[in-house]
Amino acid sequence: SLAGLIDISAHWMTDLKEGVCLAGFWFNHEHCCWKSNTTFTDRDKCPEWESWSQLILGHGEGAFAYILNYFMYVIWALLFSLLAVLLVKGFAPYACGSGIPEIKTILSGFIIRGYLGKWTLIIKTITLVLAVSSGLSLGKEGPLVHVACCCGNILCHLFTKYRKNEAKRREVLSAAAAAGVSVAFGAPIGGVLFSLEEVSYYFPLKTLWRSFFAALVAAFTLRSINPFGNSRLVLFYVEFHMPWHLLELVPFILLGIFGGLWGAFFIRSNIAWCRRRKTTKLGKYPVLEVFVVTAITAVLAFPNEYTRMSTSELISELFNDCGILDSSKLCEYVNDFNSTKGDDLPDRAAGPGVYTAMWQLALALIMKVFITIFTFGMKVPSGLFIPSMAVGAIAGRLLGVAVEQLAYYHHDWAIFSGWCSQGADCITPGLYAMVGAAACLGGVTRMTVSLVVIMFELTGGLEYIVPLMAAAMTSKWVADAIGREGIYDAHIRLNGYPFLEAKEEFSHKTLAMDVMRPRRNDPPLTVITQDSMTVEDVETIINETTYSGYPVVVSRESQRLVGFVLRRDLIISIENARKKQDGIVSTSVIYFTDHSPPLPPSSPSMLKLRSILDLSPFTVTDQTPMEIVVDIFRKLGLRQCLVTHNGKLLGIITKKDVLKHIAQLANQDPDSILFN
Amino acid sequence: SLAGLIDISAHWMTDLKEGVCLAGFWFNHEHCCWKSNTTFTDRDKCPEWESWSQLILGHGEGAFAYILNYFMYVIWALLFSLLAVLLVKGFAPYACGSGIPEIKTILSGFIIRGYLGKWTLIIKTITLVLAVSSGLSLGKEGPLVHVACCCGNILCHLFTKYRKNEAKRREVLSAAAAAGVSVAFGAPIGGVLFSLEEVSYYFPLKTLWRSFFAALVAAFTLRSINPFGNSRLVLFYVEFHMPWHLLELVPFILLGIFGGLWGAFFIRSNIAWCRRRKTTKLGKYPVLEVFVVTAITAVLAFPNEYTRMSTSELISELFNDCGILDSSKLCEYVNDFNSTKGDDLPDRAAGPGVYTAMWQLALALIMKVFITIFTFGMKVPSGLFIPSMAVGAIAGRLLGVAVEQLAYYHHDWAIFSGWCSQGADCITPGLYAMVGAAACLGGVTRMTVSLVVIMFELTGGLEYIVPLMAAAMTSKWVADAIGREGIYDAHIRLNGYPFLEAKEEFSHKTLAMDVMRPRRNDPPLTVITQDSMTVEDVETIINETTYSGYPVVVSRESQRLVGFVLRRDLIISIENARKKQDGIVSTSVIYFTDHSPPLPPSSPSMLKLRSILDLSPFTVTDQTPMEIVVDIFRKLGLRQCLVTHNGKLLGIITKKDVLKHIAQLANQDPDSILFN
Repeated sequence: SLAGLIDISAHWMTDLKEGVCLAGFWFNHEHCCWKSNTTFTDRDKCPEWESWSQLILGHGEGAFAYILNYFMYVIWALLFSLLAVLLVKGFAPYACGSGIPEIKTILSGFIIRGYLGKWTLIIKTITLVLAVSSGLSLGKEGPLVHVACCCGNILCHLFTKYRKNEAKRREVLSAAAAAGVSVAFGAPIGGVLFSLEEVSYYFPLKTLWRSFFAALVAAFTLRSINPFGNSRLVLFYVEFHMPWHLLELVPFILLGIFGGLWGAFFIRSNIAWCRRRKTTKLGKYPVLEVFVVTAITAVLAFPNEYTRMSTSELISELFNDCGILDSSKLCEYVNDFNSTKGDDLPDRAAGPGVYTAMWQLALALIMKVFITIFTFGMKVPSGLFIPSMAVGAIAGRLLGVAVEQLAYYHHDWAIFSGWCSQGADCITPGLYAMVGAAACLGGVTRMTVSLVVIMFELTGGLEYIVPLMAAAMTSKWVADAIGREGIYDAHIRLNGYPFLEAKEEFSHKTLAMDVMRPRRNDPPLTVITQDSMTVEDVETIINETTYSGYPVVVSRESQRLVGFVLRRDLIISIENARKKQDGIVSTSVIYFTDHSPPLPPSSPSMLKLRSILDLSPFTVTDQTPMEIVVDIFRKLGLRQCLVTHNGKLLGIITKKDVLKHIAQLANQDPDSILFN
Repeated sequence: SLAGLIDISAHWMTDLKEGVCLAGFWFNHEHCCWKSNTTFTDRDKCPEWESWSQLILGHGEGAFAYILNYFMYVIWALLFSLLAVLLVKGFAPYACGSGIPEIKTILSGFIIRGYLGKWTLIIKTITLVLAVSSGLSLGKEGPLVHVACCCGNILCHLFTKYRKNEAKRREVLSAAAAAGVSVAFGAPIGGVLFSLEEVSYYFPLKTLWRSFFAALVAAFTLRSINPFGNSRLVLFYVEFHMPWHLLELVPFILLGIFGGLWGAFFIRSNIAWCRRRKTTKLGKYPVLEVFVVTAITAVLAFPNEYTRMSTSELISELFNDCGILDSSKLCEYVNDFNSTKGDDLPDRAAGPGVYTAMWQLALALIMKVFITIFTFGMKVPSGLFIPSMAVGAIAGRLLGVAVEQLAYYHHDWAIFSGWCSQGADCITPGLYAMVGAAACLGGVTRMTVSLVVIMFELTGGLEYIVPLMAAAMTSKWVADAIGREGIYDAHIRLNGYPFLEAKEEFSHKTLAMDVMRPRRNDPPLTVITQDSMTVEDVETIINETTYSGYPVVVSRESQRLVGFVLRRDLIISIENARKKQDGIVSTSVIYFTDHSPPLPPSSPSMLKLRSILDLSPFTVTDQTPMEIVVDIFRKLGLRQCLVTHNGKLLGIITKKDVLKHIAQLANQDPDSILFN
C-alpha cells in the first residue's frame, strides 16, 4: 500500500514538477517559442515569437531596441519576484527558502505545524516558478524536495495508517525527498542516497526500497512526460568519449580546493548575512529586499550573455563538449577556428572569441558568487544546487579551456608528452566544468556519495567517477577545515531548530548527573505520588510548573519510579473527570496504582488514572556517560529520559537539556535553541 | 586513516582477487592458451595448446579422443575439488561455504573466533580457485566478500585504534564487504548498497562514504589490473541499443515469477538438504560428498557444451546480444541463418541450430537447478550469485528467444503490431537473460535495490532499470509469499547463530515481564548486595550459577539496583585480591559502595570492587512492551537489560531470552540458538 501511495505521490509531484518546468519554459526558454511575451530575444529566431523591442517598435535592432529589451527584462524580473514574495508573505510564510533544513529537522522529530501543508505546497509551487523565471540566482532542486515532502505528507493524511503513526510518516517523507531529488536531476539512485545521506535521520531498510521505488517512478514519469524534449532522463545530459589521464587529477584536485573554498566562503558569508537579516531592521522589509536584489541581479545580468540565460541552460552549455556540429555559443568560435585549421574535431586552439567568452564567464563567475550569497535565504523559494553548480561549472570550464590551450600550445612539454600528442583531443573542458560543479556543490552541501552518484548518473559513465570523487573529497576536506558545517546544518543552527546531529560523535566525558534537572542546588524534581495526592495537589503542581510531563513515584520518601504522565493528559483527564464523573472534587485522591484500596465511606470518591500513565519510561542511572545518553536519544528518538540512582528517582533529562549541553560544550549560546 | 587503511585493504584484496582470476584463467579458460594442461580443448585452436587427447595420442579427433578428454575433464575436476576440500578440512574449517551468513552474524555482534583470521584468508583464497576451477556449480562472489572481510579484519589488527574498538572494526568490515562485491562485479555503488542492504547490521553515514571509497578503489584497481583483458570494469559487459517496449514487461514479470519460484524452491530444498547433512551420518563424510558431487557434476557437465564451459562464461554468452561479427557459439547459428536471409542485423529467425541450442540450454537449466542445491553448503568455498544468475540467465534467454521468434513469425499479431514491424530488431534476448538472472538472484537472496543497481551498473543504462526492477520485485514478492527468509537468513537460522533480524518488525503484544528471567514461579533472581556479602558468599553464587553477570542491589529487602557486575570480572578480581592483597579471606566483606564504613578492628579487611561495577546498566520496567525492548536491543546492541518494577529490580532479559522469545513466537525450536 505504501508503494502504491508513494507511486501516486511521485506521480503527483512529478506532475507538479512538470508544471514548474513547463511554466519555466513558457517564461524562460527559447524552447517554447509559441509563447510570445518572453524577454530572451536575441537568441531565438522563431517567426512566431518577438522580442519586446520588436513588439513595440516593430523592429529588433539598434541601441534603443537593446535598451528597451534590457528594460523589459528588468521589469519582468521585478514583476515575477515581487509576485513571488508577496504570495509567500501573504499565504504561506513557510514556502520560502530551500526547505531542506526544515525537512531535516522535521525528520528528526521536531514538528513545525503547517510546514508540509497544502497551502505551502500550492504557494511554493507557484512562487518557485515565478522565482526561477525572474532570473534570480537560485535553483529549483531544494524547493522541489520540499514540494515532494508536502505531497507525501498530504497523501499520508489520506490514509489512517499513516495519519496516526509519526514514524511511518517520516519514512514516507524520506521516500518523498528521494523522489524530489530524483525528478530534479533525473537521478533515482542519487536521489535515494541523497535522502539517506543528507536529509534523513533514521533510514530503515524498508524505506530504502520504497525510496528507490518512488524515485524510479518519479524519474520514469518524468521521462514519459519528457519536459526536456529529448527523451533523455537527465537535466544536463552529457556524453563524453575521451578517457581522462591520471595527470589531469591535478587540475581536478585544484577544482576541488576551489570548490571547498567557495563552499566555506559562501556558507560563512551567507550565514553572516542571514544573521544580519534576522537581527537588524533589514528583516522587516522582505519585499523591499527581494525587489532590490532582483533589480541588481537583472541589471547586472542582462549585459552578460552567460548570466542572461537561465542558470540551468548555462550549466548545460558549460558541460557540453564541443562537437563539429555544435551550434551553441560557447563552441561556435572554437569551430570557427577549427574550420580554418582543418575541419577535424581533435584539433583545438582558442580563437579570439574564446578569450572574450572567457572574460565574460569570469565576470559571470564573480557576479554569481556574490549575488548568490544575498539571494539564498530571501523570502522566496530558493534552491542552492543550481547556483553552486553554475559557479563550479564556470570555474571548471575556465580551467579546462586553460589546460586545453596549454596542452595544445605546449604539447611537447614533458607532462603532456606521454599522452597528448599534437592534433589529439586530450582535454575535455566540459568534463572540467562537471568536476568543478561537483566540487562546488560538495563544498556547499558537504554531500559525498550522493553527489558523486548524482553526477555519475548525469554522465552515465563509470569512467568519470574517480575525477568526480577526487574533487568531491578534496572539496569536502578543504571546506571542513574552514567551517565544520554544511549549509543546511548551518541554517538549522541559525534558526535554532532542535536538531540532534546524528553524524557527529559525542566524545565528552560528562555524566548524566551533570546534565539532568534539577541541578545540584536546585529544589528537587517535581513528582506526583501514586496514591496520596489529591486533585487539588496535582492541579497546583500543573499551575505552578510548565513541564510537559511529571514522573510518578511510589512515595515522596522512597522516590521509587512508577511511571511518567504527560501534562496534557493529566489536564484533560482531570477536566473530564470533573465534568462527567460523579463525586470528583478537589479533595479526591488520584490513584495511579493498579488496585486501589477500599476507601472510608466519608471520603470523596477517588480518581483512577492508571490508563494515562506511561508505565515504561526510559531510565538511565546518574553514572551513565552522556555519550551513551546522547546515543539513546538519537537512536530511540526520545524526548525525555529519567535519571535514577540506586533505584531512586533523581532527575530528568529532556532533549532540550541534551541539545543545550551539546551547544554549551561547543561554546555556542545554549538559549538559541527553539523547542516546542 | 581509515580511508588509507581501506585503500590498502582493497588493494590487497583486489590483488587476491586478481590471483583468483588469473588462476581461474589458467585452469579454466581458453583465454590463456599458453598454459597447456587444461581440459577444455575443442573450442580452442591455439597452436601452443593441446587437448589431453592431442597430448597423449598426438591427434585430437575421433570418439576415443572425446572419451579421453571427457575422462581427463572428470579427473581434473575431482582432483581440484578433493584438494580444495582437504585443504579446508585440514587447515581452515571456516573457509567453507559462502561466508555471508557468518559475516552478517559477526556484524550483528556475535564473535566467531578465527573466522576472519589469516589462515581462513589464505586457505579460502586457494580453495576458492580450486573449487571454481573444478567446474562445480558455484561462484566466487560470496567467498570474495568473506575474503575481503578477512583482509579488513587482519588490517584492523595492525592498527591499535581498531584492535580495541569493536564497533569501529565492524565498520571496516562493512566497508570490506562492499569492496568485495565491488570487485566481484565491478559495481562500486551496487557493492555499497549490497553492504548496506544485505550484510550490515548498523551502517552509520561515515561508513557509507568509506565503503564507497573502498569499493571504488577496489573497482579501480581491478580495472588497472584488467583481468578481463578488455579494459572494461565489469564482468559481464553488455551494451544493448534497443529500447524495450511496455508490453515486454509481461515476459519480464513472468521471469520475475520464475525467479521467485526458483528462489523459494532452492532455499527450501537447500535448507532441507543441509539439515539432513547436519543431522544424519552424511555430515561425517564431507570429502566423500564433495567427491561424489564433483563426479556427478563433471560427468553430466561435459557432454553439454553450456555446462562444460565455466559458469561466468556461460552467463556472459547468454547476456550477449548477437551482432553480425559475433563469433560466440550461441550467435553463430543465428548469423548462419541471417546470412542466408540477407546479411542485416535486424532480421532474426531461428535456424535449426537454435532449437538444438535451446534444448541444450534447457538440459543445462535442469542440471544447474538440481546440482546447485547439493553443491551450496558443501565443505568447499561456494558462492551462490553465479549459479543463481546462470539459472536465471538460461531461463531468460530461452524465453527471450521464444518471444523473439514469436514476434518474428507473427509480427502481424495485434500485440506486436504497434512496435514490432517486419525486419525490425525489436526483441533483445540478451536483455531477457539479464532480467532472468536478476530475478533468480533476487529470489534467492531477496536483495532489491542493490540487486537492481548491480545489474544497472553491469549494463550501464538507466533504460533497463524498470525491467530489472519489475523482475526483482515480482521475484521478491513471489519468493516471500512462499518462504519468508532469504538464503542467508535461512542459513543463519539453520546454524543457529544468534542474529537479531533488524528488518522485521516485532509486533507481538507481550511485555517485558513475560520474557524476563526469573519466570513467575522460578526462584528469585540471583543478586549481589552492595555492602553485606562476604567473599565466600559471592564465590558460592559464582559456583552455583552459570550466569555471565549479576545485578548488584542496595539490599535484598529493597532490591534497589546499583549496578551490574560481570562474572568474569568478579572471578578475576577475587582471585587477584586473594593473591596480592593482605587480609582478604573468605569472610571479607565485598563493598561495591563508593565510601565504605569504618570497620570494627577485629573483622577481616574488606574488598572494594566498585571499579568493576557497571554503574549504568540498562533498565526497562516490567510493563514495557517487548516491541520496544527488541528495538532497544537492536539499536543499542545490548547483551542484557535489567527489568524493574516501581524502582525494584525484578529480573533480567538477555539477548538469548529475546531470541528465544522471537523463535517461540515464530513456532520454532527456541533451543536451537547458539550463544557465546
